Amino acid sequence: MTENPATEAYDAVDVIRTKRDKHELTDGQIDWLVDAYTRGVVAEEQMSALTMAILLNGMNRDEIARWTNAMIASGERLDFSILSRPTADKHSTGGVGDKITLPLAPLVAACGVAVPQLSGRGLGHTGGTLDKLESIPGWRAALSNEEMLAQLEDVGAVICAAGSGLAPADKKLYALRDVTGTVESIPMISASIMSKKIAEGTGALVLDVKVGSGAFMKTEADARELARTMVDLGTDAGVVTTALLTDMSTPLGRGIGNALEVTESVAVLAGGGPADVVELTIALAREMLAGAGVTDVDPADALADGRAMDAWRRMIAAQGGDPDAELPVATHTEEIRADRDGVIVRMDALGVGVAAWRLGAGRARKEDPVQAGAGVYLHKTLGEQVKAGEVIATLHTDTPERFTRAIDSLDTACDGAGAIAIGSVAPERSIVIDRISAG
Amino acid sequence: MTENPATEAYDAVDVIRTKRDKHELTDGQIDWLVDAYTRGVVAEEQMSALTMAILLNGMNRDEIARWTNAMIASGERLDFSILSRPTADKHSTGGVGDKITLPLAPLVAACGVAVPQLSGRGLGHTGGTLDKLESIPGWRAALSNEEMLAQLEDVGAVICAAGSGLAPADKKLYALRDVTGTVESIPMISASIMSKKIAEGTGALVLDVKVGSGAFMKTEADARELARTMVDLGTDAGVVTTALLTDMSTPLGRGIGNALEVTESVAVLAGGGPADVVELTIALAREMLAGAGVTDVDPADALADGRAMDAWRRMIAAQGGDPDAELPVATHTEEIRADRDGVIVRMDALGVGVAAWRLGAGRARKEDPVQAGAGVYLHKTLGEQVKAGEVIATLHTDTPERFTRAIDSLDTACDGAGAIAIGSVAPERSIVIDRISAG
Repeated sequence: MTENPATEAYDAVDVIRTKRDKHELTDGQIDWLVDAYTRGVVAEEQMSALTMAILLNGMNRDEIARWTNAMIASGERLDFSILSRPTADKHSTGGVGDKITLPLAPLVAACGVAVPQLSGRGLGHTGGTLDKLESIPGWRAALSNEEMLAQLEDVGAVICAAGSGLAPADKKLYALRDVTGTVESIPMISASIMSKKIAEGTGALVLDVKVGSGAFMKTEADARELARTMVDLGTDAGVVTTALLTDMSTPLGRGIGNALEVTESVAVLAGGGPADVVELTIALAREMLAGAGVTDVDPADALADGRAMDAWRRMIAAQGGDPDAELPVATHTEEIRADRDGVIVRMDALGVGVAAWRLGAGRARKEDPVQAGAGVYLHKTLGEQVKAGEVIATLHTDTPERFTRAIDSLDTACDGAGAIAIGSVAPERSIVIDRISAG
Repeated sequence: MTENPATEAYDAVDVIRTKRDKHELTDGQIDWLVDAYTRGVVAEEQMSALTMAILLNGMNRDEIARWTNAMIASGERLDFSILSRPTADKHSTGGVGDKITLPLAPLVAACGVAVPQLSGRGLGHTGGTLDKLESIPGWRAALSNEEMLAQLEDVGAVICAAGSGLAPADKKLYALRDVTGTVESIPMISASIMSKKIAEGTGALVLDVKVGSGAFMKTEADARELARTMVDLGTDAGVVTTALLTDMSTPLGRGIGNALEVTESVAVLAGGGPADVVELTIALAREMLAGAGVTDVDPADALADGRAMDAWRRMIAAQGGDPDAELPVATHTEEIRADRDGVIVRMDALGVGVAAWRLGAGRARKEDPVQAGAGVYLHKTLGEQVKAGEVIATLHTDTPERFTRAIDSLDTACDGAGAIAIGSVAPERSIVIDRISAG
């Protein structure tokens, strides 16, 4: 029992106990807590205990909405209402080979909707959009708010690093959750993502919620709950929000790794590229355009006729990048070959993602560098025929001592069963599993 | 996903996730975690997340025993085997007016068993044994291990502060739990208490597990679970351990507050004092003597014939105290009077405890001083007749501005129903509710 210092409206231990004992947090408790944590009055160890209690005991829709608003209120809000076009943004919960933002942002811009895509770097086996773009010589991720607005008006698409001014409470809290085993809370994930997207000021938002071995959400039920929670949060905040539940049991496309994914994205913008990447890019573009109220443009046309590629080149050049530059190539390669004839019946996203990460495409700690050329290229992927001795995948790295552990992860993914399996019957795969909208 | 630094055998986030996901912690995880936390490798915010996960998801008997052993291994162990007598100790989970240690330690010593009573200071509405004894002019709580051993051999009883060498992991962890809302975990409470008692090296131990409004455990089921967990831990560690479940819905005795409790303890040692205090003192003394193998001495005789009082005087004097000194008296008093004739049907321990605390007998923060003279004296307590206008209680403090809030706590205890109620039928009260022994 402690008496509350008169200077603070609430006591952190009382707030922790409320959630620990499975009660609903009040609006006042949430507003105070997030603000006091940002001010440093609520200590890290207090927030981590509360966060674990939230992870285990949950928050209801009202609590999550209040928490999200408190995180938005901890920082600045952007305002795109001065732009001459409507805005739409996309957020992916992260996957293996998920380079969709790269073709998607210029494609939607080419269709007349501005795309203010604030992105992050990768941690663990899912790559980061900024890491991918940084493999383009000269390209820079850091823009001021003014530069971002000017580029949105001029080019229509910007992919840049989120400034520190948006939802600083979330930034502090995410770093804490990362080291305290409390990342995997649907209320906290939802509030974290949506606080930044709402503060960013987009008019429409489409969420790409991944499900499967390579995704953060391993089960469809969890992915569905996350999608529903975020769609509700966005809708309540006045952002036109929809979500697609999409498959992440298999990597998207053939290239996994920073420069490999840029190359594949450029192929999609040139009208080619793997079918799954094209399908998902167009599906998400349609959602963004519809959310922004643009219904008379077909994004497939803008891919086919080169308008999307033009927007890409202008977007890269506006941030100092050379769209014609050679991309970095890893110094060493190793091939994985088929040991029999058949069809690829499993290409496990987690196993491939971890392999790419171990080859140097990703980082274990925030401060680690990434290798631009490292990663995995899939000559054969799910459902494709292969002959004994044929190359299935090429591994790329600048540090060949990494090959052994990368191959380990391919051999032992799926509970030791191996990331790659050859069988006789090509499995079905739906890229878009479901669509979740407001209401 | 993080790769584990090669220098540590485990990763804190993995350990947190194990318990978060309701799995059993391995011996290796527990040993590493407690050691790494003591070394500062596991951060406070990581330990607090784990502690909340333990509070909500529990630990089984094996995990609790391993955790307790890891905390013991974090520090030194005392050894009383060189003493010429067997040793027995008592631990109370804390209550209102619980001064039992004061008459009990010299009483058991007078019966031929050495009592090494390492005690603490109070926090919140339950008083601390050291705070009570410090109201005796000259008495000092801090003894070296050598001084403690010498006094045990010479006087047979010592009540002193636990040195920082015993279970330092527990000390650090308790301070963390206190500010993170994670005190109320039966596995953690059990490990905390028993790690210190086992490290202290006593041969026998009796646990006084309180149940009721003024106790830490509000329900008999919780108190029983705590008692069972601690008896098992002690038994497994080779300490003869029993527990009494005792009533803490009503304060023990009439005096609540530091000097008021010393006065009442001296009255018990002189052969008088309140019946409930005498009954519990003798019941606990019998358990301690039996645990130490002494079955031919009746502690009631040692109270009646003055041997216990002699031991008290020698024990106080050995630590610099003057057993004949006047005790501090508060400068201000206020009386609570009956508003009708009848019998006291409720004297709520929590309400009275909070009143005494607010009068200055206890502290809100560890660094706060306590008032030696402050507290509540009950002229009438549970089951006693009272006439309208008669004084039920006197409140004592050196800071009279505290009276209002102290009276508030008496008026609004028991969910607003008031700590003191006058009715017509005297209620039953059993001091000792049950006895729990090994097996």
